[in-house]
Amino acid sequence: MEQYKVEKSSVLLTNIFANRVDRMKSSDIRELLKLISADVISFTGGAPDPDAFPSPDDLRDAVEYILANRDKAFQYGITDGLPGLRKSLIDFMYRQISIKADLPNVLITIGSQEGLEIVGRLFINQGDKVAVGLPTYLAALQAFNLWRPKYIGIPVDDNGLNTVILEEMVRKHKNTKKPIKFVYVVPTGQNPTGTIMSLDRRKHLLEIASKYDLFIVEDDPYGFITFRDDIPPRIKALDEEDRVIYLSTFSKIFAPGIRLGWVVANETLIKQMSLAIQAINLCPPNFNQYMVKYFLDNRLIDRNIPRIREIYRVKRDAMLSAMDEYMPKEVTYHRPDAGFFVFAYLPDYIDAKKLLYFAIEKEKVAFVPGRSFYVDGSGYNTMRLSYSLPKPRVIVEGIKRLAKVIRNSLMR
Amino acid sequence: MEQYKVEKSSVLLTNIFANRVDRMKSSDIRELLKLISADVISFTGGAPDPDAFPSPDDLRDAVEYILANRDKAFQYGITDGLPGLRKSLIDFMYRQISIKADLPNVLITIGSQEGLEIVGRLFINQGDKVAVGLPTYLAALQAFNLWRPKYIGIPVDDNGLNTVILEEMVRKHKNTKKPIKFVYVVPTGQNPTGTIMSLDRRKHLLEIASKYDLFIVEDDPYGFITFRDDIPPRIKALDEEDRVIYLSTFSKIFAPGIRLGWVVANETLIKQMSLAIQAINLCPPNFNQYMVKYFLDNRLIDRNIPRIREIYRVKRDAMLSAMDEYMPKEVTYHRPDAGFFVFAYLPDYIDAKKLLYFAIEKEKVAFVPGRSFYVDGSGYNTMRLSYSLPKPRVIVEGIKRLAKVIRNSLMR
Repeated sequence: MEQYKVEKSSVLLTNIFANRVDRMKSSDIRELLKLISADVISFTGGAPDPDAFPSPDDLRDAVEYILANRDKAFQYGITDGLPGLRKSLIDFMYRQISIKADLPNVLITIGSQEGLEIVGRLFINQGDKVAVGLPTYLAALQAFNLWRPKYIGIPVDDNGLNTVILEEMVRKHKNTKKPIKFVYVVPTGQNPTGTIMSLDRRKHLLEIASKYDLFIVEDDPYGFITFRDDIPPRIKALDEEDRVIYLSTFSKIFAPGIRLGWVVANETLIKQMSLAIQAINLCPPNFNQYMVKYFLDNRLIDRNIPRIREIYRVKRDAMLSAMDEYMPKEVTYHRPDAGFFVFAYLPDYIDAKKLLYFAIEKEKVAFVPGRSFYVDGSGYNTMRLSYSLPKPRVIVEGIKRLAKVIRNSLMR
Repeated sequence: MEQYKVEKSSVLLTNIFANRVDRMKSSDIRELLKLISADVISFTGGAPDPDAFPSPDDLRDAVEYILANRDKAFQYGITDGLPGLRKSLIDFMYRQISIKADLPNVLITIGSQEGLEIVGRLFINQGDKVAVGLPTYLAALQAFNLWRPKYIGIPVDDNGLNTVILEEMVRKHKNTKKPIKFVYVVPTGQNPTGTIMSLDRRKHLLEIASKYDLFIVEDDPYGFITFRDDIPPRIKALDEEDRVIYLSTFSKIFAPGIRLGWVVANETLIKQMSLAIQAINLCPPNFNQYMVKYFLDNRLIDRNIPRIREIYRVKRDAMLSAMDEYMPKEVTYHRPDAGFFVFAYLPDYIDAKKLLYFAIEKEKVAFVPGRSFYVDGSGYNTMRLSYSLPKPRVIVEGIKRLAKVIRNSLMR
């Protein structure tokens, strides 16, 4: 590329933004992560291991299938998503996770992030109360924030969101002007804790939703990346009253670079979601949808899931055993049963964000400070460690470095 | 697919929508178009001709290039878009349309529709005044409507948006509580009229923007599909004060099925746009971006543009000469110099929407009633006829049928 000098008198339009722009801030995390150079061991993002991506030969075969459907694959599509893909996906969900759906219940999105965007857009009026985990997935909060909800934080422990406390909070807010409207939950491989909500709590959550007339947003990006056998059914699979909006993504079981996710919900909700997407970006890419349809129809994703699980199980084990060995006893952490992350708690006099500067500068290791995952301003002494991308031996080295940083901060 | 019966007690969540949902209505057009069966000749959508799509052999080569970059192509990307693609695009814009930009001025979007979505989200407060053509592109209005602007309609004639009237309106609203904030314009192949804004008016528009401190949104999906030689420079290429937000798309010069578009603007605006996209869908698909980069770097898009122009020129000519021959003299229309559409005016006692029912039911031909393109409630006697998809002989047959419907309605 030549560099084209852009010489403008630059009247610079600084006062033209709408008043909602202050709700579109870059997260602390992203700003901090810009400090990371190539020699830093990074436990930051949730990027999949490229070993989990589809194989070149399968992809070439998929491309021949796409070319056989060239006139449609390159054309505009239906806003709801390619019907053929939605059908294949319905079969996939039934055989893999016992979720039953018909075509009008399924919508294809640009990653599950677009599902979160639409949930915010369609359901959150200013001041509406939304119950979320303490901690919970940061980017869901970013998507919801634009619409100015009031968050009600519910503690998460090794069995997931604490539904007893949830029910207390729902009851407490029931007769206020704004009762709790919906519960956002990541029950299977919670982000950031990696915990799996117990079956009892899943059932209790549905009971609460029914009793107090709430709905549930079940976000399930990591539900296929599980490390034990007794995974309870998805909340959507237990949902008798159609109160669950289920979101998932092909990012972890196929590849994030194709940006496809999906929503399963009541037909009326899907229709309205589809109208929202029309205005946002018209429709998801047909090309990518034919690609995923090929992989689904040939059971290539089904066959890949056990292999992918093994990739991440090995990495999780590497991180946990390194932590068991090297971390000072003051550091506690969840032992994740699913997903990409170990979530750790430091002594409460340590600010993880301050620690991050030392970690990057002195020891060349990076993590995500946990505070952004807490809607109540707490969690400053927590950290999320992703094991999805680095190789196992790099994970061990990174944990050694991190343990050193933490030990040093304990002595201060 | 097996059909999974979804048996739910269906408490049906009808009262859960946010109060902005009434601004996300399906357009009349889309509802009407559901009536279209396979035997109807359709002049409705703006779908490209598949003959204009990339060739299978080039695509296979592109896939090998993508596979050589597999670890990145399948991975999450940068919210602003793949830097390599943005560099290739900067070169492309410079050689094709004399727009100068640096990397921080360019953002990749999901079609140019996502550019429109972001413009609305970032710049429109409730009641903000936005000047648009009479008529103007329907889906831009749909994207903006969510934020409740007040539209100021400015007539469009064969030389594009009338900037003399624009200046009058800008002056009139200047000292009100809400002056006109920006002008949305499709100067090169206006949708729906197909007109090209004259150079004088482009310069005048920039003068107005400078004098009254407005900004300009230049939407350019059809700027490469032109049918005469003396196309004036893009407004962005004349923009000395960085007042233009330029939007375009690969949908017409490559394929809509990959859903990629782009924005060129001041760096400060691009940064804020990028934050908005983070919350909407994280990032555009890397896979698709590598694909387009391959086609740009090998000049395959440049080489294809003259061929694509010829495809649509032949179709435009087929439609115009059929209209000249068969349409009653009461029907007038623009002779498009660019784009996919002929826009026609019926006698003012004819409602094009009512006509559409007869056209579909009796004569098996469909078009888009023009009223939705008018922000002032006028245009009920107008129609948009797309020639992009049907074969030339089908276009002629469709125009014959449509002329018959119109002749019949003239006699009523």
